[in-house]
Amino acid sequence: MSSTLSPIELRRKIRAGEHTGNTSGLAAGFVQCNIVILPADSAHDFLRFCQLNPKPCPLLAVGERGAAALPALGEIDIRTDVSAYRVFRNGQLTDEVTDITALWRDDLVTFALGCSFSFEEALLADGLEVRNITEGVNVPMYRTNIDCTAAGPFAGKMVVSMRPFRASDAIRAIQICTRFPAVHGAPIHLGDPALIGIVDLALPDYGAAVHIDDTEIPLFWACGVTPQVALATARLPLAITHSPGCMLVTDVRNSRLAVL
Amino acid sequence: MSSTLSPIELRRKIRAGEHTGNTSGLAAGFVQCNIVILPADSAHDFLRFCQLNPKPCPLLAVGERGAAALPALGEIDIRTDVSAYRVFRNGQLTDEVTDITALWRDDLVTFALGCSFSFEEALLADGLEVRNITEGVNVPMYRTNIDCTAAGPFAGKMVVSMRPFRASDAIRAIQICTRFPAVHGAPIHLGDPALIGIVDLALPDYGAAVHIDDTEIPLFWACGVTPQVALATARLPLAITHSPGCMLVTDVRNSRLAVL
Repeated sequence: MSSTLSPIELRRKIRAGEHTGNTSGLAAGFVQCNIVILPADSAHDFLRFCQLNPKPCPLLAVGERGAAALPALGEIDIRTDVSAYRVFRNGQLTDEVTDITALWRDDLVTFALGCSFSFEEALLADGLEVRNITEGVNVPMYRTNIDCTAAGPFAGKMVVSMRPFRASDAIRAIQICTRFPAVHGAPIHLGDPALIGIVDLALPDYGAAVHIDDTEIPLFWACGVTPQVALATARLPLAITHSPGCMLVTDVRNSRLAVL
Repeated sequence: MSSTLSPIELRRKIRAGEHTGNTSGLAAGFVQCNIVILPADSAHDFLRFCQLNPKPCPLLAVGERGAAALPALGEIDIRTDVSAYRVFRNGQLTDEVTDITALWRDDLVTFALGCSFSFEEALLADGLEVRNITEGVNVPMYRTNIDCTAAGPFAGKMVVSMRPFRASDAIRAIQICTRFPAVHGAPIHLGDPALIGIVDLALPDYGAAVHIDDTEIPLFWACGVTPQVALATARLPLAITHSPGCMLVTDVRNSRLAVL
């Protein structure tokens, strides 16, 4: 699958079942999104949760009740345009599917949240090394001791992703990511992991550990897995998300998310 | 001396000999400058040194040859408007005076460089604690193992100032200072001091040590003492600078230095 495929071409292949699995590195230059789909009676609380916790939950678009379209992000049918979905019932993962047309209901509301792929692209474009990309693994992610601000049934600890840098590159990474608040923005912590409740960087809760050199400092970003944890806490009768790494590919250019 | 005195009122008092000594905290909100005055035959090399090393030597104004005025910074007579000057001959400090009218020559060129007072004000305005201000001491400064880029006789190691912050405040401080490249800009290092050749934070080369909590990380900014070190290296027949802490107070508002 070429990274030069346009977003609409890639979505058509996904829609036709011709591409399944990870979207990392595909349709380079365009925003990819975390997806959360909920019944309307929980939608307002989830929207408030995003508003209260913008760093882990940077909201890019909210669909109309019952609508599969997300016109702000492109010509999208959310029922077919994500390569893999996870279906949760009462907070438990019950199914993983490549199409949710059969599950669709006229009370479902779709939320699209920014994803670290966008800022990783900006870091790479500046000549910085992104260790998880160098090592070809999913970024290491950790549950912290930082409480999200609760909204209705949505609550939980913040999850962070970690990327190590030399000090001068760390400062540059903070500058670059500050321009992109819609995709988690600047790191929320750097240095000693214990200060945010992380016991051992070699044992991530999600993703894979990466090498950290003695001369490097770990940077921690608020992570899009946070709303998934909040979702599990809420134990809704039905919730649907993308599968990890299988994001919604949009027509919005990453550069358009830069506030400056 | 009230901090609400305007820059021109303060300069008039200094000019009249009614204020001597430190200008820290005076004429709040306005840019204060490091001053270097050199014979014209060294001026081009010093200007190149500033151009090559903009983080320690952020140039705000250069006077005309032989002119005591700096119209870009206000109605200034550089011979009388700094509260204390240091006179160097062949690289050696030979005198400290409050007026250089008697030393003035028609081949002298004045350089005004940005100073950390401006970004410290921006940090305080954002609610951050600046430890050296809290403790009422001169900021601790350290010679590093980082070579400046040489220009003619001007060369030497970079000097940095250090301020400790909790991680989240460190990230915020980087964001704030990034807006102010004309006053040293973002830090050049954070974390392990040994990586830039600093042996012991408790033993600064200039200024006074400050307390660093276990939960804090040291941030290091390129420092305006760097050009003074380069000046000593150059061993010019004559050079004049401000005395430490006795800066040129200008009519330029700190906020006007923000690039955004």
